[in-house]
Amino acid sequence: MKKIVVQKYGGSSLSTIGKVKKIAKKIVARFKEGNQIVVVVSAMGNETNRLLKLAYRISPSPDKRELDMLTSTGEQVSIALLAMAIHILGNEAISFTARHAGILTDGKYTRARLIKIDSQKIEKALNLGKIVIVAGFQGINHHDEVTTLGRGGSDLSAVALAVQLKADLCEIYTDVDGVYTANPKLISEAQRIPRISYDEMSEMAALGAQVMHHRAIDLARKYHLPIIVKSTFGSSKGTMITKEVPMLENVIVRGVTYQKNVARITLQGVKKNTDLACRLFEDLAKENIVIDSIVQDLYNQDTVTVSFIVTEEDFMPSLKITKEIAGKIGVQKIHTDCNLAKVSIVGDSIAKESGIASRMFRALSRAGIHMETINTSRIRISCLIKLSQLDQAVKALHDEFELSKIKKEI
Amino acid sequence: MKKIVVQKYGGSSLSTIGKVKKIAKKIVARFKEGNQIVVVVSAMGNETNRLLKLAYRISPSPDKRELDMLTSTGEQVSIALLAMAIHILGNEAISFTARHAGILTDGKYTRARLIKIDSQKIEKALNLGKIVIVAGFQGINHHDEVTTLGRGGSDLSAVALAVQLKADLCEIYTDVDGVYTANPKLISEAQRIPRISYDEMSEMAALGAQVMHHRAIDLARKYHLPIIVKSTFGSSKGTMITKEVPMLENVIVRGVTYQKNVARITLQGVKKNTDLACRLFEDLAKENIVIDSIVQDLYNQDTVTVSFIVTEEDFMPSLKITKEIAGKIGVQKIHTDCNLAKVSIVGDSIAKESGIASRMFRALSRAGIHMETINTSRIRISCLIKLSQLDQAVKALHDEFELSKIKKEI
Repeated sequence: MKKIVVQKYGGSSLSTIGKVKKIAKKIVARFKEGNQIVVVVSAMGNETNRLLKLAYRISPSPDKRELDMLTSTGEQVSIALLAMAIHILGNEAISFTARHAGILTDGKYTRARLIKIDSQKIEKALNLGKIVIVAGFQGINHHDEVTTLGRGGSDLSAVALAVQLKADLCEIYTDVDGVYTANPKLISEAQRIPRISYDEMSEMAALGAQVMHHRAIDLARKYHLPIIVKSTFGSSKGTMITKEVPMLENVIVRGVTYQKNVARITLQGVKKNTDLACRLFEDLAKENIVIDSIVQDLYNQDTVTVSFIVTEEDFMPSLKITKEIAGKIGVQKIHTDCNLAKVSIVGDSIAKESGIASRMFRALSRAGIHMETINTSRIRISCLIKLSQLDQAVKALHDEFELSKIKKEI
Repeated sequence: MKKIVVQKYGGSSLSTIGKVKKIAKKIVARFKEGNQIVVVVSAMGNETNRLLKLAYRISPSPDKRELDMLTSTGEQVSIALLAMAIHILGNEAISFTARHAGILTDGKYTRARLIKIDSQKIEKALNLGKIVIVAGFQGINHHDEVTTLGRGGSDLSAVALAVQLKADLCEIYTDVDGVYTANPKLISEAQRIPRISYDEMSEMAALGAQVMHHRAIDLARKYHLPIIVKSTFGSSKGTMITKEVPMLENVIVRGVTYQKNVARITLQGVKKNTDLACRLFEDLAKENIVIDSIVQDLYNQDTVTVSFIVTEEDFMPSLKITKEIAGKIGVQKIHTDCNLAKVSIVGDSIAKESGIASRMFRALSRAGIHMETINTSRIRISCLIKLSQLDQAVKALHDEFELSKIKKEI
């Protein structure tokens, strides 16, 4: 039985015809090792942004169905060119759009969710000895119309296909050589993490490590699909994401991560006992806006203050929805703050170990950093801080937990 | 009952976002006159060529399925942007790929032929008051894969949709303001022809008048669909193509047209009584290569010479096929000539009038032009000449038949 390997190449790995040809060689080499190969690709280089710019030159708020019709062409160009580049090497390859690949989604244009994959065509092609090239980022809804999966969509396409095909491995090729203990551009001593658990990776991805999208990791975790993240053209061994990671050296904190573009929306003077929060978060969820921490505090005897955190990307639509609801139920004031960042430490055993939170707070405090809000989960502690203090905060935490001392390979 | 109008805009009409916005206004104006509008568009500007260049940087002979996968994205970008540009004007529009428009073709990638159109989705959208924007040039085959219709494909898409929808009119917008008695770039006294018959237009299109593709005109003729060809941004009344054209002033020759890129392939020393010609033309037809005149002459007692004319575009594949067959049956020599052109006069009554051919030959002869072969049909007389003498030939014929004296409007 041949192994099935799903590979994913991002836009920066496909930004020139030269790179497309190089990738074709890599794919063929992997194929010749005796694997069945499915390759998921993004649009070439900045193609998606180029297309979006055309759209925004026409309309400040283009119709979402038409945006998906537009941007999905980027991946379609990539699959065709990559298939040609494999043919010229003397191998059989076939390009599939989301439709051919059977990637079915709900109807939410520009941020659709996967429903299922009907992989018959892919399996047939694999069994004919073909390398299958699939357009990432896109799906089709039940009206047979193109949808796109939103940020990180191609990662999600790759993982979902790997799960559906019961692949042995999903390889995510990108422009960094793995997951680091902190952003190496910020922290020169940051170390590549050789193995990381789904939980840790999911948190780190959700919190801003730009390597892979957390939706993809969450799906991989559910089906125990091993993923390796590595550099397309480099030689590093990358980072393996699996269920269990041997905790040699008693590593508690796996990495420091951050999210630069977060914004807070605060509603002051909300009447007590209204269902504001409920309605607000329902309406935000309808737009697939993910809300980070929510805080509800007494403001005075009759009213409360509600505040919540969203990504910068979701800020404008969130504010619009908030204002609509606030207008209906009467709110004294809406207050916004966009100069915030979130810094977090992540590690599978954080909740189990005592004293981790206090070490974090002390380290930040020593560095003169004020924490706006704090948010914890089983494997993560996050602090909202001023954007201007972000670099200092990451450095302080990376030092505190001695992350530069991680062993290169475990 | 509202009138149904199908409009088609070519790539040069869509080469910038500014033009896309202008076209949106034209479409909305036509819609507000009380028409149901279906718009067929080509790829923006030189997008198709840009994509083809990417492909040819990868492979000298890219797989045709992948070429169609690639180039069909050009039209998809256009339809999405044009729909957005109509939305911003406050009107409803929806973009349809060939799949949504139900444009079904055979399986011949890069030069597919239309089989039928399943226009349910379009009709539904029209009845909901939407302007429907359809990707020209593309179709889908019975494997549900994208095909393209070859040269002039968008014209064909427009006419086929107009026929299927029983449209009242098909409007072809282009960068020239109608059909002329000769190429106005060559002959400054050339006149716009206000009305022309399907037969005449089909001949002129097939022979190289770059205004519209003859496949599209042939289809319109079959269903008596009126077509108007006019300039996108100009004010000219254009040229109306219909069944009957009043022949005021006893106009016999409607126009002089030419084809620059023709090539002749000659097989010398073919054994008599072989089925070479038959097999050759069967194999060429399989590749959808259209052969112009075929000449078979005695070469010596036992052998014949067979020669035929193809467009430059079809030259290389035709030569390949010719060599394959020649190899099998034994041919003494294959001879090729690419420096040829075809000049023709076209008019519905040419066959009925005596003396037209002799006037043509005398005019060319007076201008010192040698005719290689002559070819006539009911409404056309064509001469194959040296490419270097083409300009002189067109001028001589335009003068001979006094085409600069045509009335501006009939």
